[in-house]
Amino acid sequence: MANKLWEKNFEVNKEIERFTVGRDREMDMYLAKYDVLGSMAHITMLESIGLLGKDELGQLLAELKNIYKTCERGEFVIEDDVEDVHSQVEMLLTRKLGDMGKKIHSGRSRNDQVLVDLKLFTRHELKDIVENVKVLFDELIDKSNKYRNVLMPGYTHLQVAMPSSFGLWFGAYAESLADDMQFLLAAYRITNRNPLGSAAGYGSSFPLNRTMTTELLGFDTMNYNVVYAQMGRGKMERNVAFALATVAGTVAKLAFDACMFNSQNFSFVKLPKECTTGSSIMPHKKNPDVFELIRAKSNKLQGLPQQIMLMMNNLPSGYFRDLQMIKEVFLPAFEELKDCLQMAAYIINRMEVNERILENSMYDAMFSVEEVNRLAANGMPFRDAYKKVGLDIEEGNFVPDKNIHHTHEGSIGNLCNDRIQALMEHTISEFDFEKITNAEKTLIE
Amino acid sequence: MANKLWEKNFEVNKEIERFTVGRDREMDMYLAKYDVLGSMAHITMLESIGLLGKDELGQLLAELKNIYKTCERGEFVIEDDVEDVHSQVEMLLTRKLGDMGKKIHSGRSRNDQVLVDLKLFTRHELKDIVENVKVLFDELIDKSNKYRNVLMPGYTHLQVAMPSSFGLWFGAYAESLADDMQFLLAAYRITNRNPLGSAAGYGSSFPLNRTMTTELLGFDTMNYNVVYAQMGRGKMERNVAFALATVAGTVAKLAFDACMFNSQNFSFVKLPKECTTGSSIMPHKKNPDVFELIRAKSNKLQGLPQQIMLMMNNLPSGYFRDLQMIKEVFLPAFEELKDCLQMAAYIINRMEVNERILENSMYDAMFSVEEVNRLAANGMPFRDAYKKVGLDIEEGNFVPDKNIHHTHEGSIGNLCNDRIQALMEHTISEFDFEKITNAEKTLIE
Amino acid sequence: MANKLWEKNFEVNKEIERFTVGRDREMDMYLAKYDVLGSMAHITMLESIGLLGKDELGQLLAELKNIYKTCERGEFVIEDDVEDVHSQVEMLLTRKLGDMGKKIHSGRSRNDQVLVDLKLFTRHELKDIVENVKVLFDELIDKSNKYRNVLMPGYTHLQVAMPSSFGLWFGAYAESLADDMQFLLAAYRITNRNPLGSAAGYGSSFPLNRTMTTELLGFDTMNYNVVYAQMGRGKMERNVAFALATVAGTVAKLAFDACMFNSQNFSFVKLPKECTTGSSIMPHKKNPDVFELIRAKSNKLQGLPQQIMLMMNNLPSGYFRDLQMIKEVFLPAFEELKDCLQMAAYIINRMEVNERILENSMYDAMFSVEEVNRLAANGMPFRDAYKKVGLDIEEGNFVPDKNIHHTHEGSIGNLCNDRIQALMEHTISEFDFEKITNAEKTLIE
Amino acid sequence: MANKLWEKNFEVNKEIERFTVGRDREMDMYLAKYDVLGSMAHITMLESIGLLGKDELGQLLAELKNIYKTCERGEFVIEDDVEDVHSQVEMLLTRKLGDMGKKIHSGRSRNDQVLVDLKLFTRHELKDIVENVKVLFDELIDKSNKYRNVLMPGYTHLQVAMPSSFGLWFGAYAESLADDMQFLLAAYRITNRNPLGSAAGYGSSFPLNRTMTTELLGFDTMNYNVVYAQMGRGKMERNVAFALATVAGTVAKLAFDACMFNSQNFSFVKLPKECTTGSSIMPHKKNPDVFELIRAKSNKLQGLPQQIMLMMNNLPSGYFRDLQMIKEVFLPAFEELKDCLQMAAYIINRMEVNERILENSMYDAMFSVEEVNRLAANGMPFRDAYKKVGLDIEEGNFVPDKNIHHTHEGSIGNLCNDRIQALMEHTISEFDFEKITNAEKTLIE
Repeated sequence: MANKLWEKNFEVNKEIERFTVGRDREMDMYLAKYDVLGSMAHITMLESIGLLGKDELGQLLAELKNIYKTCERGEFVIEDDVEDVHSQVEMLLTRKLGDMGKKIHSGRSRNDQVLVDLKLFTRHELKDIVENVKVLFDELIDKSNKYRNVLMPGYTHLQVAMPSSFGLWFGAYAESLADDMQFLLAAYRITNRNPLGSAAGYGSSFPLNRTMTTELLGFDTMNYNVVYAQMGRGKMERNVAFALATVAGTVAKLAFDACMFNSQNFSFVKLPKECTTGSSIMPHKKNPDVFELIRAKSNKLQGLPQQIMLMMNNLPSGYFRDLQMIKEVFLPAFEELKDCLQMAAYIINRMEVNERILENSMYDAMFSVEEVNRLAANGMPFRDAYKKVGLDIEEGNFVPDKNIHHTHEGSIGNLCNDRIQALMEHTISEFDFEKITNAEKTLIE
Repeated sequence: MANKLWEKNFEVNKEIERFTVGRDREMDMYLAKYDVLGSMAHITMLESIGLLGKDELGQLLAELKNIYKTCERGEFVIEDDVEDVHSQVEMLLTRKLGDMGKKIHSGRSRNDQVLVDLKLFTRHELKDIVENVKVLFDELIDKSNKYRNVLMPGYTHLQVAMPSSFGLWFGAYAESLADDMQFLLAAYRITNRNPLGSAAGYGSSFPLNRTMTTELLGFDTMNYNVVYAQMGRGKMERNVAFALATVAGTVAKLAFDACMFNSQNFSFVKLPKECTTGSSIMPHKKNPDVFELIRAKSNKLQGLPQQIMLMMNNLPSGYFRDLQMIKEVFLPAFEELKDCLQMAAYIINRMEVNERILENSMYDAMFSVEEVNRLAANGMPFRDAYKKVGLDIEEGNFVPDKNIHHTHEGSIGNLCNDRIQALMEHTISEFDFEKITNAEKTLIE
Repeated sequence: MANKLWEKNFEVNKEIERFTVGRDREMDMYLAKYDVLGSMAHITMLESIGLLGKDELGQLLAELKNIYKTCERGEFVIEDDVEDVHSQVEMLLTRKLGDMGKKIHSGRSRNDQVLVDLKLFTRHELKDIVENVKVLFDELIDKSNKYRNVLMPGYTHLQVAMPSSFGLWFGAYAESLADDMQFLLAAYRITNRNPLGSAAGYGSSFPLNRTMTTELLGFDTMNYNVVYAQMGRGKMERNVAFALATVAGTVAKLAFDACMFNSQNFSFVKLPKECTTGSSIMPHKKNPDVFELIRAKSNKLQGLPQQIMLMMNNLPSGYFRDLQMIKEVFLPAFEELKDCLQMAAYIINRMEVNERILENSMYDAMFSVEEVNRLAANGMPFRDAYKKVGLDIEEGNFVPDKNIHHTHEGSIGNLCNDRIQALMEHTISEFDFEKITNAEKTLIE
Repeated sequence: MANKLWEKNFEVNKEIERFTVGRDREMDMYLAKYDVLGSMAHITMLESIGLLGKDELGQLLAELKNIYKTCERGEFVIEDDVEDVHSQVEMLLTRKLGDMGKKIHSGRSRNDQVLVDLKLFTRHELKDIVENVKVLFDELIDKSNKYRNVLMPGYTHLQVAMPSSFGLWFGAYAESLADDMQFLLAAYRITNRNPLGSAAGYGSSFPLNRTMTTELLGFDTMNYNVVYAQMGRGKMERNVAFALATVAGTVAKLAFDACMFNSQNFSFVKLPKECTTGSSIMPHKKNPDVFELIRAKSNKLQGLPQQIMLMMNNLPSGYFRDLQMIKEVFLPAFEELKDCLQMAAYIINRMEVNERILENSMYDAMFSVEEVNRLAANGMPFRDAYKKVGLDIEEGNFVPDKNIHHTHEGSIGNLCNDRIQALMEHTISEFDFEKITNAEKTLIE
């Protein structure tokens, strides 16, 4: 029978603490840098409204910059008996500056402090994701251009259907990423709003200047309504997860295709050796482990929105400790997606395609539609052309003409990759990352 | 024991047909109008590249306009032995115009025909959703302004925490909708791209002019890559579902709060009588049925993305019949959300709030933080002020001063509703609905 | 701009009614028969505790039997201005028997009435599902036995790996269904408990005899605690959905394999002609539409638990109108799954396999492991055997011996189908369907 | 712009290894003990069919027992350059016994080795979960009995509706756990089947005796069909997750109620001080952090089935690396649920209820139904009684008689806790844990 908590040989309170702290300190390490940034903006504003002396501000800022650099060097730690990142930062300040260190907490609460940390972290990670998406996009466009003339079978119902090309196949995933960028943009926009000053979700009686911290931190606007600022906890995570899920969906599908095309039953592609595992006894076995893991991780990420929803849904407005748990699934998601994007880009970069697929007569029949159109274009009534080709195939007399003449926009002979690139560039330009980079640089320099 | 299909007293083929057709005809009724529009653009283009005579075009367009009007009058039906909307439209054309009616199918396939129908339908529905969100938003802003000075308790952990106001509460949901609009915009942008001309997902050997149909139908751009155009099936639905889910999440949360505040244990709000059910024997019982159904329907909608994912995930690229099933959960979702938005707007419009909540001494303690700040602002050291107020509360000597002086942006005395409105208006302006309205009008007039 | 509800040209109250009634009447049609059964048991008990005269009971039972027969003949309807099935039944009774008809409501509430309807409906549907699973199971075992000696490639990572057999492939899905049966049993057991007498979730001051109604309706036990009886609403649906999802998962996977094996790139199976669609011009194109729809529907069903969760989660205990919405997704799910099971059984029954797959030299390498084992068994050191075979393959000298001698339990030569069948039979015997059949028969005869 | 993987200053291969190994070693630590057990059974069988000498068996078993004890003492580690648990165990053996250590791998593959590890781990964890559920169950029954006479309001629609009791409230959750046990049983049964001998999913040409390993490891039966044994990967995890989710659902709901009842607006319960956080300045603020975290963690667990589904769905049969990723979300889930169960049991054990709730006149109206029934029982026509009571309430003349006389099964005066306990005991007895305990003991002693 299971031991009861209160009959075990240890202090119950330790167990309760272990349970409530959970993986909080591990999670807070993601936020450390941003916690410092938020504090710098906050105290700069405090000084401007007379709640902090000019001298104090100077000393505190200097010390916070030091801590920021510690974070950048990867040397920041949360000490063993310190509860979270906020306490650690405060302790470092008071060690150096005495009681003055505590003043950084005037006019805010843990709630808006965590909120602003999450926002700064998330917008930074979204920037990273955008850049990594772009790297994969570029590789796909390159391969699409390179293999624009290499035909492959196009399937419907996984049945050989029509001629397609590797140019089309690679390009399709590039365009998919261009569309996904729209959701990253939406996610970025709702993220890039300042919650600082909302305190515990009901504002403060201090005459805070939220416009000032908004500008200092490079936010587009603030989360105006303080109740909404708090309501954004959980909501931002869910909605950013929507954006990650759409990118992950594209990557997972690409991986699915590639794993299938890597099967001996297709043999369409050759994956880089270092991304497959094999068997010395079965030299043709090339297990696409890396792409399978990319697929699995991406599919897991597609479940993230639902996971967050289940934790936040049907909670009344106002803060609950439940929201803390979202961090455990949300914060590491960016790294996972970036890993997938980098690995996928690497594989695409190194991937080779089989230029001789169509020599297999299994694929001949897919040229029949083209043949019918050709005969029809040359004057034979459509129905007659259709019958003739069908009969030829049945009798084995069909000799496919594998010269494809698709000229319209987006098809084999006219991939429009330049226009897809223009679309991508345009969306990326809407992010205006420079603004946040400059703001952050100004704060820490 | 269950009957085996092949031992039943009926033709197996009928059962198979019932199974495969499913609710397709019911679903196609959502698309009828848009199928006609798509055909009008398609044949106009066909004429321009010489695949249709000028005369033919004229007669076909005239007849398609008639069918369109039938749809608008709600009189369009798919006849009993007709498989789908496309066949029905063709049959109506050939009844009137003979074999000429069949020419509308040149240079396209069922696949891109359905794709364009879905796009035209979805962008129209998104426009409707945006407008309905705006109606609810306006009501929330109105109530926020009206009740800006009515205080209510603010909770954290569902514990009475700090003074809040109805102005803040209503306004928070308004701002939430303003953020949701970003995802509707992203959804709209990926929807408003032209898939027509992608045929079965591999393009056509006809010299189609996809730029022309893109303009005729008022699309922003085309889905360039034809493989991607087909890959968008399922993906568009999932991503639009993300956008619907964020709106639904806001509405569900609003409903949750309102249902709780309607409990006798809170008694914060009074819902319109016609939206509650009661009991003659328990006159104080006001069951908030309408808001509960809004909550349930909105929560159901939040599950839509996952439902679509499970159907489309891990399918190789290319069309599969699986994608048809998505229609059953996707197409009716818009009507459900619009219903929720309209009902919610109605209730908010008629809702009254309890202006005397704070007379209950249960809420006194939440003014303690303000009191501490006040004493501190007047010179008493913070720790001393803190101790004094704590002691007063414990001894029952605490007399709260319920005059709140929050002045900073977004708090009780400074709701910034005008800036939230400006944010909303700006995002709506990015949709450019006029373009699609004009394009559609030009086609059918 | 969207019309506001309160400015439209119709009565708002009609709209609110439309919204609240929703698809309730449609849903109640699933429950009609069971509502009558529940009432019969209830009034029989009422008479036993003196709340109904013997004469009255007789007349009411007679009339309820008539209504039950109407349901069985498919002639029961809920009239236009009648709200739900309960009102319709009462109206039919009062039409015939006057005010006596209203007495069927003493000592219960709508809440426990709906609860018992849902339980009776669900246990009946689970019985149907079990029977249909058994039909598919039998077909799979038949085919497994029939093709026990037909080898096929076994894949890992979708790479040709080891010899497998159609006997194994069909049998695997049979055993999967046998395991799924455990979850159907768990679902059945929690369903087959009597909630009647829990009234609105807090019991009744009437001296009800719940043990009696439990026996009359053939329930295993009652939901004892009345608060739990009500708490079971939503929970039963979610948990039954878990059971349906596991069956659906097996069916979806079977369909996935079959659709892939039907591709020209595999050509392992031949689906019945009437379950595929094709193209006269591409005679080899056999689109597996029916299996694709089975897959899509089954995948949709796998999303059902999450959908229900989102509606019921984080609601306090006690009835909410939200729970009504679950009916719309739950009640039709059984029919959908039964359809899938029947269609799958039909296809498996008619499916043919390609007995000559292994003539393709692509599959030769998978016999290498067997060869190494053979050499090792004959005394060659394992490493040497391994090297030799690897070398032979590389140099094209490897001549596979395609005679497989797997003898252990569950492998190619020893499928253990009889033991899988015994497992299935045993689990089915644990359901004890006879008890409910007898109870229902006794009530209505 | 993001760095490209292939342009970074490190070896690509290291990055690929990091990506593919992922958190595998951390995950394998969960499995170490069970890996040793599986190996012991496997080699015992190998000896019985002549593939291992008696001496060798003795030495290998002795060494494996040592490793097992290392695991039990928490001292087992996977060394830095060792890939996984299997390699670590083999290395430990070869260090001691030389090449003989490698013989433990004859006749199996990594695939069935991992499968059997997962089964042994999972059945053990399920046993733990069952025991912890029982502890919480017992506390709930205790409290239900203790507070059987303490009334509280019963709600519908969160509206005060009918008298209920704490006896009912606590008891409801106990009965809910009794039902959940059915799903744990189903999960246990499909888990407790032996996959060993299925090799890579296609069996082995060695004359393995799978019946023997089944008995040695205390499995109920084997997963007969070797293809199904492999197909169980992912499926077992999903289905066990269903069972965990139903328990988690009960716990989350209990936590939701308790957090709400802890609000000042209800004040129904008093949580143990050490499980709340507060504020010295607001002495009445008792934030129920522990219950909130229990709720959040339980809600997260409810999302586990969907997460697993997204990773495994629509994969063809046969092993894929994707399945490895499931470990990361599945293995830690048991500890999380056990934590929640233990904390919940602790709080319930220490929780106090407010015995004077009903003194608040807000709850008077809920006795009206009882009053009507009382008048009716005393001869007043029901309609008249109903009118009279309604009028009394409206005029403030209603004096509730708070003596409740519910006598029927499962209601206030007759909780049937003994029968709920009997139900629970019966289900637990169906698990037959002794069998596995004995088998494991026999192996390691």
